[in-house]
Amino acid sequence: MSAPDSAAVGLFGLVAYGELLAFDRLAADARLAPDLRRRAALSELAAGEMAHYRWLTDRLTALGVTPEEAMAPYVEALRAYHDSTEPRDWAEAVTKAYVGDAITDGFLRGIADGLAGPDRALLLDVLHDSRYAEFAATEIRAAIGADPRTAGRLSMWARRLLGEALSQAGRVAAADRGALAALLGRAGDDVPGVLRRLTEAHATRMSAVGLNN
Amino acid sequence: MSAPDSAAVGLFGLVAYGELLAFDRLAADARLAPDLRRRAALSELAAGEMAHYRWLTDRLTALGVTPEEAMAPYVEALRAYHDSTEPRDWAEAVTKAYVGDAITDGFLRGIADGLAGPDRALLLDVLHDSRYAEFAATEIRAAIGADPRTAGRLSMWARRLLGEALSQAGRVAAADRGALAALLGRAGDDVPGVLRRLTEAHATRMSAVGLNN
Repeated sequence: MSAPDSAAVGLFGLVAYGELLAFDRLAADARLAPDLRRRAALSELAAGEMAHYRWLTDRLTALGVTPEEAMAPYVEALRAYHDSTEPRDWAEAVTKAYVGDAITDGFLRGIADGLAGPDRALLLDVLHDSRYAEFAATEIRAAIGADPRTAGRLSMWARRLLGEALSQAGRVAAADRGALAALLGRAGDDVPGVLRRLTEAHATRMSAVGLNN
Repeated sequence: MSAPDSAAVGLFGLVAYGELLAFDRLAADARLAPDLRRRAALSELAAGEMAHYRWLTDRLTALGVTPEEAMAPYVEALRAYHDSTEPRDWAEAVTKAYVGDAITDGFLRGIADGLAGPDRALLLDVLHDSRYAEFAATEIRAAIGADPRTAGRLSMWARRLLGEALSQAGRVAAADRGALAALLGRAGDDVPGVLRRLTEAHATRMSAVGLNN
């Protein structure tokens, strides 16, 4: 076996740890649901993160790297995001899922081009199922429908989520000593390019559910 | 379509809600893990509960019953168990998973005989994967190996878990107006028989990991 692609190892470690944290936070946020149906929906979304986690860590193990080792550099950088974006109610919880999934998926789609065949396919496999975004979008629209003033509060919340996510991206770039920047370079991209695209995609997603940038 | 088997509907509602609650509690307990590997293992166990939840609620929907409706009678009866058995550390968390899975599976195996073909198969499909019990057993043995005094504390904890589970079974039987008792009758069994078997199986499982009854 040839030496593992160290940029891919770093990326899989980052994404795997992101999935583990997202699982943890979504599972906790599910307690904010107003009924069992909604609680189960967010819990299923959380469980989906663990399936992805398993695929990524299986790949790391196949590459001869322990998942813990690959995840370690990102632990602090990712935790701060969730610590500073704790939803206070159901509307904030589904908005966080909606915004967070979009940002993550936008990042994964961009960086996947820097990887070769099977690793690239794996990364595209861990994109979120669109039915989760549809569920979250429906819930956000329902919250605004029930009380139009919610739109202002959720718009502000979504901007905060974007801001925290972008500052997390900066911390990640600082933590990994250039591994992700190298991958982006291979994909013919760079960090400012990614941030710009994420911000644009975020704006589109916000408009789609009646929130302002 | 013939009228749904009301005893099966009740049972699926009970088990589905049990899975949803187990997901929630295991996900929270995973935070007690001493490292990322163990945290991921308990999180995966939690995620597995949601897969089972989905199978059961899909079946309920196919039977023309909304999952919420089928789960409603059991909400109070099941919640009290978890509220009164909150683990304080990792050793208690894995012991709770070990004991709880065994009791649930023992109950499911016993009552499955009261159901017809596909419903019976479904129930046997939601039994826990034995690798989770192996993981929990390894962790319990490791905790006792690291500090032999832990055995006494965990033995007492496991007895409390059994006691709370049996009293939960009494609350469930009271909540469902005889539906489960009817199923047990079809399986040629009764409530005292189930309780006796669960208690015996519990004793065997305890000895296997070095705990006392």
